[in-house]
Amino acid sequence: MPIPRAVLDQLKQIIPPLNGSLHKGQSGRVGVLGGALDYTGAPFFAAISALRIGADLSHVICSPTAAQAIKSYSPDLIVHPILREDSSHDKVRGELDSLLSRLHVLILGPGLGREDYMQSYAKLALSLARSRAMFVVLDADALWMVGQDISLVKGYRRAVVTPNVVEFKRLSEQVGVDKDVPQRERSQEVSKRLGGVVVLEKGKTDLIAIDTTGEAASLEESKISGEHEAGKVKVKEVLEVDVEGGLKRCGGQGDILSGTVGAMLAWGKCYEDGAFGDQNIPASRLPVLAAVGGSMVTRTASRRAFQKQGRGVVTEDMIPEIGPSFGEVFGAEFQGGEKGRL
Amino acid sequence: MPIPRAVLDQLKQIIPPLNGSLHKGQSGRVGVLGGALDYTGAPFFAAISALRIGADLSHVICSPTAAQAIKSYSPDLIVHPILREDSSHDKVRGELDSLLSRLHVLILGPGLGREDYMQSYAKLALSLARSRAMFVVLDADALWMVGQDISLVKGYRRAVVTPNVVEFKRLSEQVGVDKDVPQRERSQEVSKRLGGVVVLEKGKTDLIAIDTTGEAASLEESKISGEHEAGKVKVKEVLEVDVEGGLKRCGGQGDILSGTVGAMLAWGKCYEDGAFGDQNIPASRLPVLAAVGGSMVTRTASRRAFQKQGRGVVTEDMIPEIGPSFGEVFGAEFQGGEKGRL
Repeated sequence: MPIPRAVLDQLKQIIPPLNGSLHKGQSGRVGVLGGALDYTGAPFFAAISALRIGADLSHVICSPTAAQAIKSYSPDLIVHPILREDSSHDKVRGELDSLLSRLHVLILGPGLGREDYMQSYAKLALSLARSRAMFVVLDADALWMVGQDISLVKGYRRAVVTPNVVEFKRLSEQVGVDKDVPQRERSQEVSKRLGGVVVLEKGKTDLIAIDTTGEAASLEESKISGEHEAGKVKVKEVLEVDVEGGLKRCGGQGDILSGTVGAMLAWGKCYEDGAFGDQNIPASRLPVLAAVGGSMVTRTASRRAFQKQGRGVVTEDMIPEIGPSFGEVFGAEFQGGEKGRL
Repeated sequence: MPIPRAVLDQLKQIIPPLNGSLHKGQSGRVGVLGGALDYTGAPFFAAISALRIGADLSHVICSPTAAQAIKSYSPDLIVHPILREDSSHDKVRGELDSLLSRLHVLILGPGLGREDYMQSYAKLALSLARSRAMFVVLDADALWMVGQDISLVKGYRRAVVTPNVVEFKRLSEQVGVDKDVPQRERSQEVSKRLGGVVVLEKGKTDLIAIDTTGEAASLEESKISGEHEAGKVKVKEVLEVDVEGGLKRCGGQGDILSGTVGAMLAWGKCYEDGAFGDQNIPASRLPVLAAVGGSMVTRTASRRAFQKQGRGVVTEDMIPEIGPSFGEVFGAEFQGGEKGRL
């Protein structure tokens, strides 16, 4: 079941034009929160993928235990080692809020880990992002975090969760999805129980589901700015991305996905703010579009890297494939460089 | 409005010859002051660009919080982690002065940040550089610094400031440019109010402006060494560099510019000191020439990297394009390698 042309046409509208009309930042300022003692590759993959799909600026907010390694992977990332285990909550709150004020999207989870202080800072960041009505992507141990307390994300329709098979199974149980719900309907049921949060269920094909017919979706706090009917218009939809991916499930591909979805949400924010485009697409539609676009490009990059590297493919091989994949999915003219024609 | 041939001819005179006559250092010893907790890519981009356009040695003077990452980006940089938050001012003064004595130019700002101790050391470095009559480039948070206290740079005609759109707007207000001054004349007005400091206003096209008709330009301390009439000969000029750049405004391109302008100023210093050339070009002309040359090469590198990478271009992609861009702007024979003919 390919993605309908109408969805792709909408998606193309939130791709920033490459005509010199935008200044630095108007193609997206992305933040990734993650990176601690054990994990440094994951936040790097998310943050660099955001740049390689086309964001202007990509920040990593991490523990000092991870910062030097992440910085060393790429001078193009801006790495903020502010999540100190021995910092006060108030100090970090101020630093986080100042950082978030400069970002269009927050990707929570890649390399977050489960250390208490990291989980605690991640919760703080999510609540600050909600109070700023920012788009957020939740992956990996940020899914574990919201699984412990669904209210953290419930009813927040600017969020996309991106669980893999294991994470999806756990999340389904945590939100109380009945075992009898057929496999194909489960992602929608999870979205419904999360109050309309967009669910990107990764798998052999990726399912992007939204269901706002549940109770929480009409909560006041779920209001999508500039669209007062958000809580009233009920949406129930599932889209399947069956674009061919690679045949190797090396670790890290999910981080690429969170970065590409995040970058597209950042574009959505720039679109919503009027940096480009005609603002005909309602804000409530943007998370679905970003999830579809990120999935298509990431799966394509996975296939291309696998075609070259085969069994020995690693996630780093996917980074140079993001540009060509974007060209393959949306057309070379949207990618704008020789890479987009490869 | 292309750069006049006469300006390009002058520019070519300050390019060090590649005929074996120079020894190590006589094609420029560059220093970049910047790099602290949050920023490590910016000083790297500035320092490596100085080498890639053709300086002999490139130093980074930074905080220990940034040094390991910057060192890891390239073994060709010499990284001095002397800007310790807990050092005494006197100790750092001695270390800085010793370092500056070996450099031809100081680039202040890339990755400097706004932490108090970094701002304080940057002020110290600028005053030491002035007392040594060194060429300086001020970018990023060094512009924020001089914006707080214009006297730091006022009347210092060996300085080039390189504000982007946002920084230029702020600087214009800080020096008191009237709102009625037409857009095209504002960079000159800023130069005038800074007492003849060269302004490189980055934008869709780059404007390089100098105006020494203001009062401060005749201050004693503005004297350009070897040119006693500097305070008397009034100059008012604006040049526009409309060389095609890339269509993506990813963060970091400004750092490349500060590095290329800085390297050309270092060449200017070697030229002034008699390492090569005929010394017909007055020292007061060198900042304008370096700003024009740096702008032309940087914009070309931006265009070339964008042509290849399209939407996913990052600043790191521009580094290997600096050599070919130099060849494109000045001719392959000036670049000297196969890269210059690409």
